[in-house]
Amino acid sequence: MQQNHGGNIRAAAKEYNLDPAEIIDFSANINFLGPPESVTKALKNNLKGIKDYPDPECNQLKTIIAKQENLEEDNLVIGNGAVELIYLLATVLSPREALVLAPTFSEYRLAIESVGGSIEEFQLQKEEGFRFNLDDLLPRLDNIDIFFLCNPNNPTGKFITREDIIEIINYAASQDTFLVVDEAFVDFLEEDITVIDLVKQYDNLFVLRSLTKFFAIPGLRLGYGATNKELIKKLNASKDPWNVNCLAQLAGEKALNDKEYIKQTEEAILREKEFLYQKLNQFSKFKVYYPHANYILVDLENSNLTSTRLEEKLAQQGILVRNCNTYSGLGEDFIRVAVKSRENNLELINRL
Amino acid sequence: MQQNHGGNIRAAAKEYNLDPAEIIDFSANINFLGPPESVTKALKNNLKGIKDYPDPECNQLKTIIAKQENLEEDNLVIGNGAVELIYLLATVLSPREALVLAPTFSEYRLAIESVGGSIEEFQLQKEEGFRFNLDDLLPRLDNIDIFFLCNPNNPTGKFITREDIIEIINYAASQDTFLVVDEAFVDFLEEDITVIDLVKQYDNLFVLRSLTKFFAIPGLRLGYGATNKELIKKLNASKDPWNVNCLAQLAGEKALNDKEYIKQTEEAILREKEFLYQKLNQFSKFKVYYPHANYILVDLENSNLTSTRLEEKLAQQGILVRNCNTYSGLGEDFIRVAVKSRENNLELINRL
Repeated sequence: MQQNHGGNIRAAAKEYNLDPAEIIDFSANINFLGPPESVTKALKNNLKGIKDYPDPECNQLKTIIAKQENLEEDNLVIGNGAVELIYLLATVLSPREALVLAPTFSEYRLAIESVGGSIEEFQLQKEEGFRFNLDDLLPRLDNIDIFFLCNPNNPTGKFITREDIIEIINYAASQDTFLVVDEAFVDFLEEDITVIDLVKQYDNLFVLRSLTKFFAIPGLRLGYGATNKELIKKLNASKDPWNVNCLAQLAGEKALNDKEYIKQTEEAILREKEFLYQKLNQFSKFKVYYPHANYILVDLENSNLTSTRLEEKLAQQGILVRNCNTYSGLGEDFIRVAVKSRENNLELINRL
Repeated sequence: MQQNHGGNIRAAAKEYNLDPAEIIDFSANINFLGPPESVTKALKNNLKGIKDYPDPECNQLKTIIAKQENLEEDNLVIGNGAVELIYLLATVLSPREALVLAPTFSEYRLAIESVGGSIEEFQLQKEEGFRFNLDDLLPRLDNIDIFFLCNPNNPTGKFITREDIIEIINYAASQDTFLVVDEAFVDFLEEDITVIDLVKQYDNLFVLRSLTKFFAIPGLRLGYGATNKELIKKLNASKDPWNVNCLAQLAGEKALNDKEYIKQTEEAILREKEFLYQKLNQFSKFKVYYPHANYILVDLENSNLTSTRLEEKLAQQGILVRNCNTYSGLGEDFIRVAVKSRENNLELINRL
């Protein structure tokens, strides 16, 4: 199954003749606790709200985010999922030359190509654990209009520090390069690496956030971006005014205020990612990358398995993992698995 | 209150210090029956589905629409509301010169301007009841890249026949002009004016549909477009893959199959539009346009009221109407009211 993304349970169920309800999905990096009860309860009690147009300004949600991130509401744009904003940025900035990491999330490339831009890749080396040093990266920003930095990176799980990003921003500014830092998974990290506050200081910075992964609501679609106020105006003018449905807005409001759920998630992810990492590490045939976020990259090179073969074998048993063969540079050597519940994690280990 | 659209209950509640729950909203053209019970019930029972990504292909919904409209699934693109597809078309076709009716729905202009295109207006004349003849229109298509035809037109409620549209399509084809027929309100009409079947025959035609008005689900966002398969591919490549949330997909599937609700709506709209039209007509100070869809345009010229004054006076009493002063060419002479329940319609008449 050649797919650009994980999480397509319907397609897998069809291909492997499975009951969708029986599938254990390690292919999408969604918080295994499921949506907060505060969210599902609010949705249930407010379903009648679907008869009215959603707030085009997303005012209540923006107020909460602005307060939490110490930004102004005019620094924020709310998206029908974070990925909508990648396409919106591509449309509005219409860059000719874009730089992306390799491997990284595939939608940057697709969005840039959809507006006729060209893509250059900054190849991360397996031999260096998919880390990079700034001395190699910075010269690559010359003549680049936009650089997409996924931090932590997907699928490697590696992150770069705030200090390094500031160096990138400054160099990028000197080259008229616009920097997009995709922090879709930043909430899962123990380390504090966000640069969202810097949008007040730097005009060449856009920070992208997702609410669907941490709060387990990918079906509703919800993300946001922070950048300078001028660009926010342009983005708003180039999008449909009602892009964020009313239930997603409500879910975001409830979720961001659910401190208990946030704490539970942080504890659960920490506990289970350590557990799954240790267990996977006991397979001598796998090289396992330490998970900073809620997903784990596994190198199969020393096994006798290709990623496609392993994906198929597991799928036939109702377990979906992310075959990384669609990521640039990873060939047939890698799978990615989400951190899930203890029971599911044990099931995966047993099958492996 | 200067607004591009009706239906912004929150903004009105704030401006006039009203309880949003007490407002009677005639400003948005939404089916007053509210969403089908089959929809709200399905949503309630499937809220747990928000933990998974929506189907990027919207396969189940496309199957239903394709069957109902006798099209292939590859002729369809599903939108996060119909308006998302207007912006997507603007991005993908990137037209330099666009023609719109005046007055008409404002998002065509905004979408075209957001991609740097220019707008020409084909002015509909009040003296001619906002009708137009083809002899005047066709020459205006020369050197036009895209023509947006809202049918029935919003806010006038006038429609043009299928035969006339076919003449426009043919002439447009000879001029390399692309035609978008926005059929957002077509389901409310007794007359059969759709041209959606013609996308199989003409490559320069896109037909836009909304599911949020007839099925009263604007908060969920759902619309679709039909056109040639090549353009569908381009549109799909230029949009975020998960643009349609899972609840909107589910709602669309249930709604389109709810024949009983569709029949009830047709009867209720027919009954109430005649009632409200007759009642409004009894005010000698108003010139009332016969409603083909579920909204009525009212000319205030012979009253001593401007549209802004009437809007304010009604809003202070908790009744929202659409002030048409943001529509090109209508000045301060027009309001538009949705057809609502008998009780609400009587309330409006009493206030007037």
